[in-house]
Amino acid sequence: MAQKPSIPKGTRDFAPQEMMKRNHIFETVRRIFEHYAYLPIETPAMENLSSLLGKYGEEGDKLLFKILNSGDFSNGVDFAQDSKKLSTIISEKGLRYDLTVPFARFVVQHQNELTFPFKRYQIQPVWRADRPQKGRYREFFQCDVDVIGSTSLLNEAELLNIIDDVYKALNIRVVTKINNRKILAGIAETIGFPEKIVDITIAIDKIDKIGLEKVNEELSTKISAEAITKLQPILLMKGSFEEKIETLKTMLNNSEIGMSGIAEMAELFEYVADLKLYMPCELDLTLARGLNYYTGSIFEVKALDAVMGSICGGGRYDDLAGIFGLKNMSGVGVSFGADRIYDVMTELNLFPESSGVGSQILFVNFGRAETRVILPILKLLREKNIACELYPDTAKMQKQFNYANSNRIPYVAIIGEDEIKNNTITIKTMQNGQQEKMSVEQLTKLLSKL
Amino acid sequence: MAQKPSIPKGTRDFAPQEMMKRNHIFETVRRIFEHYAYLPIETPAMENLSSLLGKYGEEGDKLLFKILNSGDFSNGVDFAQDSKKLSTIISEKGLRYDLTVPFARFVVQHQNELTFPFKRYQIQPVWRADRPQKGRYREFFQCDVDVIGSTSLLNEAELLNIIDDVYKALNIRVVTKINNRKILAGIAETIGFPEKIVDITIAIDKIDKIGLEKVNEELSTKISAEAITKLQPILLMKGSFEEKIETLKTMLNNSEIGMSGIAEMAELFEYVADLKLYMPCELDLTLARGLNYYTGSIFEVKALDAVMGSICGGGRYDDLAGIFGLKNMSGVGVSFGADRIYDVMTELNLFPESSGVGSQILFVNFGRAETRVILPILKLLREKNIACELYPDTAKMQKQFNYANSNRIPYVAIIGEDEIKNNTITIKTMQNGQQEKMSVEQLTKLLSKL
Repeated sequence: MAQKPSIPKGTRDFAPQEMMKRNHIFETVRRIFEHYAYLPIETPAMENLSSLLGKYGEEGDKLLFKILNSGDFSNGVDFAQDSKKLSTIISEKGLRYDLTVPFARFVVQHQNELTFPFKRYQIQPVWRADRPQKGRYREFFQCDVDVIGSTSLLNEAELLNIIDDVYKALNIRVVTKINNRKILAGIAETIGFPEKIVDITIAIDKIDKIGLEKVNEELSTKISAEAITKLQPILLMKGSFEEKIETLKTMLNNSEIGMSGIAEMAELFEYVADLKLYMPCELDLTLARGLNYYTGSIFEVKALDAVMGSICGGGRYDDLAGIFGLKNMSGVGVSFGADRIYDVMTELNLFPESSGVGSQILFVNFGRAETRVILPILKLLREKNIACELYPDTAKMQKQFNYANSNRIPYVAIIGEDEIKNNTITIKTMQNGQQEKMSVEQLTKLLSKL
Repeated sequence: MAQKPSIPKGTRDFAPQEMMKRNHIFETVRRIFEHYAYLPIETPAMENLSSLLGKYGEEGDKLLFKILNSGDFSNGVDFAQDSKKLSTIISEKGLRYDLTVPFARFVVQHQNELTFPFKRYQIQPVWRADRPQKGRYREFFQCDVDVIGSTSLLNEAELLNIIDDVYKALNIRVVTKINNRKILAGIAETIGFPEKIVDITIAIDKIDKIGLEKVNEELSTKISAEAITKLQPILLMKGSFEEKIETLKTMLNNSEIGMSGIAEMAELFEYVADLKLYMPCELDLTLARGLNYYTGSIFEVKALDAVMGSICGGGRYDDLAGIFGLKNMSGVGVSFGADRIYDVMTELNLFPESSGVGSQILFVNFGRAETRVILPILKLLREKNIACELYPDTAKMQKQFNYANSNRIPYVAIIGEDEIKNNTITIKTMQNGQQEKMSVEQLTKLLSKL
């Protein structure tokens, strides 16, 4: 009869100890977003499939979780079609795949209620039917911060500042890689294949994963050998930021879009110098990022001390809201991957010791008479924001103490006949086993210090 | 080309102003749960359908949102079946319908890592394909608090205490109605239809909605006229708590389960008297609650000043974890409906004025030279936990001031040529238009007071 319980693959339960650590990440990120005056929004888990399909490429469409229509969904449906077509007939809604497309939809839908530039943050789970593997889940949390309605590069600088603050606060050493899609477009133009920019950037994007040789091999199916040769200096370019910019200026001299990307990059790095960031930022021409909607600056953050894909990324998109009918709204944003940050922090043992949640004190339960004395004390402590509890059953002392130990409760209070008579409380410090008698006032003082 | 954006019916976007109010509710509830030492957990949005189906009755099964299997889901499927059967073939996962069944599944799955009694809270959205109407959404948040592994009625008392704290903190006047399923079982037994307890409780549950006459009419299809006559005094019983208990004791004298329910009720009200609650609790024999899994105490909270269904409810379930194979684990819990609480607070205008999020000060942007002076000041303020921002574009002054007004930013800082020369900042108080020159230190002091 009884089912062996399990959860869908790629999803996870979070037990209290994990929740406390995750909340540490969410609270840090939220606090910093708010310091920079980004405002919170939330969107529904389900979006209309028409809002999602076609926004993440063909591969993305396949990874969308689709919701079966309610009621008699199969009535009158012609089932002699392939799964892809059929799914759009028996399903009208899907789970959100990221927070960017819902944000674009939100901005267009609520444009008359918003003040632009609109700075929003959003911390919610997203779902992708990806093959589960290290650092990749089917349900995971994104922490997105975007500004829409401003073309100023100060926004990019602000996002780099936020990235710096977040990883400094979390104690993770990172490097932020920066590129500009306009430079990539300029390169594509210069080597004579402007229409192949997507193929070229996707190929460049893989250089870290599959190496230069394989990237050249892939490119050979897309562009001419001459173009590949022209591209090599770019792929291999080293040197200081200034040296790279000079090389690019020379090479992209005849490309308007390329020169505009270089100017943006130079301006952004001026701001970065002003900001005196804690962590390094570097120009990385091999950074392309897969998503099609980026049009300007692009960012990616890597942890220096852990083997993990990017733990934050984003960029500027000049026409994201355009797909929902709102033109000329440039946006820029980054997304922090809470689950990867969690995995990195676990690997590097970076979580603070103190859990911050759970009882500070457990009152032993001897029975009805003692309970009547304890209840008002609990009330008093809670009014002082002290987390405390009474063991609910009159179980054996050993069992009650085990409960305190397992839950890492630092103090146990004993109120028995003697204590009631003398109007006192015996407090046992669990770490060293020491016992001390004290008044309610003394106890309140002791626990307020924690 | 452009799509007119919309979201699925029964779902909502939350704009910043709504988010701030919602967060006020969530933070209040969370703080109080933690005062009582409940520990946070989270479970995935998707559960295996096998964990959900059959747990909420036939009607509940229909209201589950089912996820279409990924990939080529229709391959080899015989479509000559009704929608209900078909859905279990092309869908293996569903969105969670409440937090109680996932909690039971969690407890069984992780039983070896948990210490019992296990006190957990969980604040997450749930999804139901219900017909949307006032106070009823297809995506809504529940705030659940449960203890499992203890039969003590002190747990029930603690939950009543939590209910009292929450509504006191939110400033909502409520009454908590209390009943016990064992008393209802005793009544069913006494009137001679013990096997009809579910029908009887469901009928009683409707008394507020459809009235006594219709309830009697419904009952007449389930039980004899004699039994209905025997039941009337119960349905109409008035008087003090003690009077009701005495009437019940007399009437259920021969029912073991009934007398056990009466004893539990009497003990619980003894604790309630000890707790000196702020809001009233009352015995209400017409309270039944629809869900099948309750076996002991049941609770329901109603707002006194607003027309709204219950804004909190719950009870004891002796065998919830049993459906997943873990026997003898009694649990008790309540669920706060955040969305209904939000609606009540909006109706009664109970949200505090201060939003608590957004900039405390906006710095006007005159251009590059001024920006270089402003960036280090922003850094300093943020290090003091002061939310602040620089307008990203060098737009007209009027536009920048409009931004401050629309976003209710209390101060605007002006740093132009003069201010740079004199190493000062001009601060405009938006509420009264007054301007004052001050140093960075003075500004920090001013904003730290907010």
